[in-house]
Amino acid sequence: MQIKECIVSAPGKAILHGEHAVVHGKVALAVSLNLRTYLRLQATSTSKVCINLPNINTFLSWDVAVLKQLLPDSGAELGNVNELDAELVRMLRNFVGVSNGTLDTRSMAILAFLYIYLCVFAKELPSLTVSVWSELPTGAGLGSSAAYSVCLAAAMLSASGTIPSPLSDQENTARWGEVEMELINRWAFQGERIIHGNPSGVDNAVGTWGGILRYRSGKITALSRVPMLRILLTNTKVPRSTKVLVAGVKDKMNKFPSIINPVLESVDAVSCTCEQTLTEMASDTPTPEHYNVLEELIDINQHHLNVIGVGHTTLDTLCQVTLARGLHSKLTGAGGGGCGITLLRPETECSVIQNTIQDLKDCGYDCWETRIGAAGVQQHSPLALHDSGLPSLLL
Amino acid sequence: MQIKECIVSAPGKAILHGEHAVVHGKVALAVSLNLRTYLRLQATSTSKVCINLPNINTFLSWDVAVLKQLLPDSGAELGNVNELDAELVRMLRNFVGVSNGTLDTRSMAILAFLYIYLCVFAKELPSLTVSVWSELPTGAGLGSSAAYSVCLAAAMLSASGTIPSPLSDQENTARWGEVEMELINRWAFQGERIIHGNPSGVDNAVGTWGGILRYRSGKITALSRVPMLRILLTNTKVPRSTKVLVAGVKDKMNKFPSIINPVLESVDAVSCTCEQTLTEMASDTPTPEHYNVLEELIDINQHHLNVIGVGHTTLDTLCQVTLARGLHSKLTGAGGGGCGITLLRPETECSVIQNTIQDLKDCGYDCWETRIGAAGVQQHSPLALHDSGLPSLLL
Repeated sequence: MQIKECIVSAPGKAILHGEHAVVHGKVALAVSLNLRTYLRLQATSTSKVCINLPNINTFLSWDVAVLKQLLPDSGAELGNVNELDAELVRMLRNFVGVSNGTLDTRSMAILAFLYIYLCVFAKELPSLTVSVWSELPTGAGLGSSAAYSVCLAAAMLSASGTIPSPLSDQENTARWGEVEMELINRWAFQGERIIHGNPSGVDNAVGTWGGILRYRSGKITALSRVPMLRILLTNTKVPRSTKVLVAGVKDKMNKFPSIINPVLESVDAVSCTCEQTLTEMASDTPTPEHYNVLEELIDINQHHLNVIGVGHTTLDTLCQVTLARGLHSKLTGAGGGGCGITLLRPETECSVIQNTIQDLKDCGYDCWETRIGAAGVQQHSPLALHDSGLPSLLL
Repeated sequence: MQIKECIVSAPGKAILHGEHAVVHGKVALAVSLNLRTYLRLQATSTSKVCINLPNINTFLSWDVAVLKQLLPDSGAELGNVNELDAELVRMLRNFVGVSNGTLDTRSMAILAFLYIYLCVFAKELPSLTVSVWSELPTGAGLGSSAAYSVCLAAAMLSASGTIPSPLSDQENTARWGEVEMELINRWAFQGERIIHGNPSGVDNAVGTWGGILRYRSGKITALSRVPMLRILLTNTKVPRSTKVLVAGVKDKMNKFPSIINPVLESVDAVSCTCEQTLTEMASDTPTPEHYNVLEELIDINQHHLNVIGVGHTTLDTLCQVTLARGLHSKLTGAGGGGCGITLLRPETECSVIQNTIQDLKDCGYDCWETRIGAAGVQQHSPLALHDSGLPSLLL
């Protein structure tokens, strides 16, 4: 079959407010990060399917004929977009050679790729090469797996002709329409389920739609208009277990219900107040007072996260180091190490930003200047990425 | 008239939990501090009334005959124990030469002394010398004025024979009974009203009864049994205005009611959980887990106090410096500088305590090792204080 080559990208995600509280039915605000994952899908005539994942040092290929054997004889339909095909996942796990317990990044990435490839191209498996490059660190709670799944879904749906290319001749970058994004998101969610087991669906939704999403008790709503906010994203590189941290919060709730429950209520109100402030900023001209409120909410929530026991000395250091430069920070995601975000104001000078980044690097942290509220999944022309600093693999 | 010489002392106070929240109808726990104010009342035959307040470099005397002129001609009763005699206060202000606006420590101390002296001895003014020495810094929110007022009331009621001496021959130190303490507390409250205008009455209650008092919406209840807890008391020496800080909290409540109101609820629960834990500790043998809970409550409340905007970088430093030694601290009282308390565990070693005190002194703070839950107002025999390190003035 003749497939369409394409280059796509999807953003990472951060939690602006509501991490942990969201587990207990409170509102969380998930935002896209302009640290993106890029994927190039190329047609080949090698009768091979190749995947290059240089970030995790993974370069594999299979004969198309071998992969064909994984398809059901009956020609019965494979896993549809709404449901994971448990039998196919089981066969792929055997094929890739992972037992149920193994959850290494490489195996999960391969499983998700093969699953979406087989389902989308079930009728006729093409030979192709997929190369992926990400600006996102893996395992840092920044939605790198969702950005990867969104890219896989968008590229393969596009290559197979299931969805049209949104790129016109004059454009270097374009976004799909609502219907196509819905389909991309659903396939990406299947990828996320393979990788994470029981994901909330927030990460792939942010990767697909970008911007800012409100999440509460399983319901995801996109904020209709969002301001673009500059931030520093810092990775303390302290490894943590989300599961252990979530259990710790639950323990603290059980130990001190009358103390902790009001704190979660207050976190909920922080998320709602932030949503309202962001909406105002997008409708009107953002004012310094808007930024003051955003900073106050960041400080308040950081204290609350410490109260529920998910802080860490490295995160305290992040807050102190940035506050010494007049900037406000909080942890993002699971806490106990991991990542933090620092709000930059429009008037924050370059020298302040550069000095802060240096201070944080001196603490041994990784630090990126980026934006939240960035666009969701996009298609790019090869030309658009020529000066992007992406590895030649993709260009 | 023949008056009875006596030496009395009263403790300072700290707020363990509930500062600021108490303004909004929540529970606060006020505790006595074993930093005491000592007062010696001596009979003289000089026809003079002398007061020596070496802490504030104040040494004054008046002729009894001159003071007599301040008594009403009619022989009408002077300000009773339940009500401040506004006319007498006005006359004393003129006599001492303070306008309404002047609130310096020295003038207030003299006013309170003369007021209680004139009221208690109205029938026949004796010549006497009162000398006061305090281990408490003034103006640091540690109840130094209340300890002073309690000492004034106890000594003058005792000297006048209004209440009996509780000291038996064998004792060096003794406490009054409930009826006498009630009377001492009421007169001390009049002294506090002269000094502070509209005090809550908590400080003089702690100075009188000692131990731990629960305060909510004007109602004061003493915890029946309390454990003795070792603490460090640190004075950051950063001056602050309680009025400005209280107004700041109110502003924050008005700005973010849905965020701040639950925090005050949580503070209320911290106070109640602490009360319950202290009661358990006093009934049973205190366990390490009791101390863990006390430490957790201290950390939680310190975060809450930061959320409501009454923190200060010096208090952050206090928390960090003590945490580096494994000890937990919070601000006490108004915040915005001022004082903090650090809980010491029974197993905390002397060397750790000494090193922590040195660390805090290196930050420029004053620091005392003391206890909370100490005894309230006491009478001492002169013998009891001989090795106490008090100035010779009192001995």
